[in-house]
Amino acid sequence: MQDFTFQNSTKLVFGKEAENTVGKETVKYGRKVLLHYGGGSIKKSGLYDRVVESLRKEEVEVFELGGVKPNPRVDLVREGISICKENEIELILAVGGGSVIDSAKAIAAGAKYDGDVWDFFTGKAEINDCLPIGTVLTIPAAGSETSGATVITNEDGWYKRATGHDLMRPKFSHLNPVLTYTLPEYQTACGITDMIAHILERYFTNEKNVELTDRLCEATLKTIINNAHTVLKEPTNYAARAEIMLAGTIAHNDSLSTGRIGDWASHDIEHEISGIYDIAHGAGLAIVFPAWMKYVYKHDVNRFAQFAHRVWGVEIDLNNLEKTALAGIQKMEEFFTSIGMPITLNEADITEEHIDEMAQKGTERGPLGNFVKLNEEDVRQILQLAR
Amino acid sequence: MQDFTFQNSTKLVFGKEAENTVGKETVKYGRKVLLHYGGGSIKKSGLYDRVVESLRKEEVEVFELGGVKPNPRVDLVREGISICKENEIELILAVGGGSVIDSAKAIAAGAKYDGDVWDFFTGKAEINDCLPIGTVLTIPAAGSETSGATVITNEDGWYKRATGHDLMRPKFSHLNPVLTYTLPEYQTACGITDMIAHILERYFTNEKNVELTDRLCEATLKTIINNAHTVLKEPTNYAARAEIMLAGTIAHNDSLSTGRIGDWASHDIEHEISGIYDIAHGAGLAIVFPAWMKYVYKHDVNRFAQFAHRVWGVEIDLNNLEKTALAGIQKMEEFFTSIGMPITLNEADITEEHIDEMAQKGTERGPLGNFVKLNEEDVRQILQLAR
Repeated sequence: MQDFTFQNSTKLVFGKEAENTVGKETVKYGRKVLLHYGGGSIKKSGLYDRVVESLRKEEVEVFELGGVKPNPRVDLVREGISICKENEIELILAVGGGSVIDSAKAIAAGAKYDGDVWDFFTGKAEINDCLPIGTVLTIPAAGSETSGATVITNEDGWYKRATGHDLMRPKFSHLNPVLTYTLPEYQTACGITDMIAHILERYFTNEKNVELTDRLCEATLKTIINNAHTVLKEPTNYAARAEIMLAGTIAHNDSLSTGRIGDWASHDIEHEISGIYDIAHGAGLAIVFPAWMKYVYKHDVNRFAQFAHRVWGVEIDLNNLEKTALAGIQKMEEFFTSIGMPITLNEADITEEHIDEMAQKGTERGPLGNFVKLNEEDVRQILQLAR
Repeated sequence: MQDFTFQNSTKLVFGKEAENTVGKETVKYGRKVLLHYGGGSIKKSGLYDRVVESLRKEEVEVFELGGVKPNPRVDLVREGISICKENEIELILAVGGGSVIDSAKAIAAGAKYDGDVWDFFTGKAEINDCLPIGTVLTIPAAGSETSGATVITNEDGWYKRATGHDLMRPKFSHLNPVLTYTLPEYQTACGITDMIAHILERYFTNEKNVELTDRLCEATLKTIINNAHTVLKEPTNYAARAEIMLAGTIAHNDSLSTGRIGDWASHDIEHEISGIYDIAHGAGLAIVFPAWMKYVYKHDVNRFAQFAHRVWGVEIDLNNLEKTALAGIQKMEEFFTSIGMPITLNEADITEEHIDEMAQKGTERGPLGNFVKLNEEDVRQILQLAR
């Protein structure tokens, strides 16, 4: 086990009607708020009205910036930063999924910085200060509601880049599983895949003696897998929606990665795909992960066999651990297919046209991953395996 | 799953030499510190010197109060409160195990209160303010290093009472598994039992649809059980000591109980035993839990069968779930015995002399537990079963 420091201070308010108390939490940080959201769905559903009502009750002055797209863009982030600076905004309240929350984080950090916010994503600048952020989560997937990470896309060159800092962890996040009842099937499945991927990135480590976090990862994976078909078949099943929503938070709140170094190559590779192809992040991960696994499993067959056995119930063949390992990968592919995810680039209508470009761009800042270090040629081969 | 609010802001600094950075965290809260500890062991081991050195480096003025006993006493807490008030102490740094940390919490709350600190334990007063607390943990057991709870004993009537508030969660806790190498075998085993008990209290709930937290509980229990014999046989095995130490924190940081209502009757019954008999808390729990389980398992045989199967590896007999449930309880008793714990009052040289008194005192504020509500007669029968 590695030495580590862990702190996750986000206040989680979880349950039915959780959005109605968001005003009370907000007012602890100030009375001038930027309400940040995506398209019109929160207005249609009535969520927008309930949030605004909760803020008005506490006499909070509300500024607004909607229009966040999936794979949120740096241009809108820059617009948000201007609003914050001009109006002395005290807290950014993100109402939506991971894209909205990520966009809010970038705005929050940029509002306290004199240069261009993209500097944080290229490594030119470090985050030293940040406006407080609150969230009302509508899509269980990205785990952004308690994480300190954000992923933003720059249309100028179509770069999709991540940055992170503990200062960007939301002060509070309100999670109401009922809000997820109306999520379309495909988006629900993408979210499930995203949270699974967050755990897999942490699970595949070279660190030895990490039994507790291994088991916590497996516990969370099993719960997600067990509840996935239920939420797809019965979208208004509160119990299953609640399990999935809580699991999505646990998957990415960093408690599962204490004392271990995760991999994260698959996320980086996926960012190259969705940077170019505007594919849902979860769908991209369902394509990359099986290919990545097939490319690297020999690096630690035991760990892949443990994964196959404990998560997917594959019986361990002690005389052929490789077979056990591969059976686990196959079970995972079957699962992704069963929830409607693509598991090849072809299924997502992505040709090999940009594979070389993605491999080049993905590795231009150095090799990817920690479990196995991947250079440009490795990434090219993984993308070819994913076809 | 119940609606819930969860926030645990404690900064965890975990690993080799973690104690050496305690000054840097302390100085964030002030330069006048009360260093609180137990007996002479931290002086003999050199830990005291390293902590003081780390504080001096940051020019922190150190006041001292040693002498915390197991089952910490309210008299010493009152002494600490006087020191804090007289010297305008800004943070209390607890160096030791759960007793020292619990004592520090009571001092921290009492230092911000005009009445007598015992009021918090009788329910006469509520905690509204609290000095910040930091810890260097030496005994993995109580989980007090990130919890908001404290248990204090009043010699006047030998009452052992608990109270809790999020304000009492330590701001930072430094955990170095190497510090636990010198723990005597018996104390190591008591700590293991204590952390197991913290999970069991959360596990046995009437709440339905709590799959994720069930599995997280089971994952943590299995890790503790798997590493218990290793730390007893190889006290300087870093990997196993680290697993146990981290598990002790996870067991009681409240993440495992989100969305569910725990039981806590066994803890209350144990407090009556160790309030009178100065027995180690862990040993008391090893006696109470098997008896409690035998008394209540019929209330939810399925849950006890799940416990037997997933935690203890008992094969499920679908035609006789009661047999499966009882086999799990037996496995747990065998485990406690194997690590040197008593599982009956007799083994701990406790006669039936005070059983009636304990049952009466334990229930004088109302019935105990949530999984099954226990009145005075129930507690008497459980204590008789524990003989």
